[in-house]
Amino acid sequence: MLRNLIFPEHVYRDGTHHTFMTEISTLGEFGLIDRLTDGITPAHASTIRGIGDDAAIIRYEKDTDTLVTTDLLLEGVHFDLTYVPLKHLGYKAAVVNFSDIYAMNGTPRQITVSLGISARFTVEHIEELYAGIRLACSQYNVDIVGGDTTASRQGLVISITCLGDAPADRIVKRSGARPTDLICVSGDLGAAYMGLQLLEREKVASAGQKDFRPDFAGKEYLIERQLKPEARRDIVKELADNNIVPTSMIDISDGLSSELLHICKASHTGCRVYEDRIPIDYQTAVMAEELNMNLVTAALNGGEDYELLFTVPLADHERVEKMKGVRVIGYITEADKGCALVARDGGTELPLRAQGFNPLAEEDDNNGDNGADRQK
Amino acid sequence: MLRNLIFPEHVYRDGTHHTFMTEISTLGEFGLIDRLTDGITPAHASTIRGIGDDAAIIRYEKDTDTLVTTDLLLEGVHFDLTYVPLKHLGYKAAVVNFSDIYAMNGTPRQITVSLGISARFTVEHIEELYAGIRLACSQYNVDIVGGDTTASRQGLVISITCLGDAPADRIVKRSGARPTDLICVSGDLGAAYMGLQLLEREKVASAGQKDFRPDFAGKEYLIERQLKPEARRDIVKELADNNIVPTSMIDISDGLSSELLHICKASHTGCRVYEDRIPIDYQTAVMAEELNMNLVTAALNGGEDYELLFTVPLADHERVEKMKGVRVIGYITEADKGCALVARDGGTELPLRAQGFNPLAEEDDNNGDNGADRQK
Repeated sequence: MLRNLIFPEHVYRDGTHHTFMTEISTLGEFGLIDRLTDGITPAHASTIRGIGDDAAIIRYEKDTDTLVTTDLLLEGVHFDLTYVPLKHLGYKAAVVNFSDIYAMNGTPRQITVSLGISARFTVEHIEELYAGIRLACSQYNVDIVGGDTTASRQGLVISITCLGDAPADRIVKRSGARPTDLICVSGDLGAAYMGLQLLEREKVASAGQKDFRPDFAGKEYLIERQLKPEARRDIVKELADNNIVPTSMIDISDGLSSELLHICKASHTGCRVYEDRIPIDYQTAVMAEELNMNLVTAALNGGEDYELLFTVPLADHERVEKMKGVRVIGYITEADKGCALVARDGGTELPLRAQGFNPLAEEDDNNGDNGADRQK
Repeated sequence: MLRNLIFPEHVYRDGTHHTFMTEISTLGEFGLIDRLTDGITPAHASTIRGIGDDAAIIRYEKDTDTLVTTDLLLEGVHFDLTYVPLKHLGYKAAVVNFSDIYAMNGTPRQITVSLGISARFTVEHIEELYAGIRLACSQYNVDIVGGDTTASRQGLVISITCLGDAPADRIVKRSGARPTDLICVSGDLGAAYMGLQLLEREKVASAGQKDFRPDFAGKEYLIERQLKPEARRDIVKELADNNIVPTSMIDISDGLSSELLHICKASHTGCRVYEDRIPIDYQTAVMAEELNMNLVTAALNGGEDYELLFTVPLADHERVEKMKGVRVIGYITEADKGCALVARDGGTELPLRAQGFNPLAEEDDNNGDNGADRQK
């Protein structure tokens, strides 16, 4: 049976006592899908046909581009069910895909959800996972239009593909940044990574203890950033309201350094980012202090922030400065200047390196399981 | 290291001796993706932007519907690398998705490919897999537009999502069958299942033998149907050429019985299928005899045929009779007549049951690993 050490029950706030007892084999594949997808009805006019055929049917207008992105999440690599509640996992698995569509300046519309389920999961477990996916879809106004559900020999497999759209003339790629463009970032960075460190610490502390209660007091923001991230739909709307079309954009899943390098590589440019301009929350700083970790490294390389990183022409300076929750952190240079962080002292330049989570690199305990789900 | 018992080397016919030695960690995620996707350029005008951003960009014309389907394939559940060569696996993983798009009377256009890769695979292994995917895409004129690549704790994970399109007024769903419609099937059934039985038999026979040579003489068709299935693009074209729009259509992945029940459930009808009309190849019959298995059961429930099952109005009788490789096997009835097989004696009616592969049912050794990848 699946055990969740850190969140024994209290995440389920509807007062019911979940039993998680129905063997999936009693329903079979189609029975399980019927149960999971019961009551799902398309919200979008573009969803002509959702679940229930060989393929979903989607109809877009002319001059509208379809966007497609996909993420594969594997138990033991991208998530640890010891402290990640299934409902949160489902929510996050959906939201990280929406984030990729927003990062193109688009709107997510439909997802397909494929699940590989090992024998230790019951129908109720998968319903919890699906409840999180459905909640995310409801909050972001996205239709679930299909998927595939199968057995897995070991662990949970989640593969979500998201379709979205955008007017063809407003799509923002990674490749459009130009020298003198301003580099902007939404929200704050490093909190999700610190949340992961905190959860890992409590997991270790809980080992062998029967009635362990994790201590998250004063660090709720970090936990929320790790377990229930949001995609920055609001920023995409704000950009449109202010009539700003970024020259390039990407969402921060692997860490600011890695994403900046992606933009600069695709745009054939360099960049300068100011250490003292990187937005960091108070709780993130306290936690870094407590764990004796380098705060800027966490903010640069921690990943899973799902904030938007984008560039705008210098002429848009005043307009982006007025945007709530957006900060200008540097500027784009010619390629031969390279990519560097300008240290707090104002003079020292440190070359930016992609140290974000790399699930295919040698094992590195300092990296943690903070997920790499870059569409490429 | 990965071993392939049944096909030690001879599947690689370019004369080179593959060494499969490059550790994936030496390239990292982005290095591996660069290597795998090197030289991939979009063939479709609708592919505005493929690999290399948060999401791919696709543009369709008005009055054209977008189709989306997805399949999740897990090692140990859907395939056994003891006898499935990686290149064949890649080919099949792509083709089964195309088959779902053809089953909607559509044309596959783009796929995303997500891979979970455990430590025993090298770069060359994944290149072999990808070579099969690329070959399938080249043969079926489909663009690879993105994906996600990550580590896996155990075994290979393949998740492919396929987009396609069709004129809105020519899409064929499962739900349009009407009483008196003729039930038609392309090709022949049961061969892929018999191929699987043969491969499993040779796997058992090979156990512990160093220089084992499998005996496939006279059974090449069965092996090909199992390891390198094709999607029936030709049938979709023939239907269009003959100006036939089926009233319902589905591809046969789980077995004829299961698919017929899907059509009848979605269309609120019953059906009668004649045992002596079910198309079965000579090699399939010989193999069933050799293994002392029921031939009709294999054809009804074996699965993985990837043939098209469709219904047409009675008025199209002459036109479908003229179609090469298509056979009329029965007719649609009112729902209250139920779904039944009319036995060879012409009188006995046996209720149709879905006995196809169910990866989420209790283990059943008679079912085998013949894959369930129904979009739902």
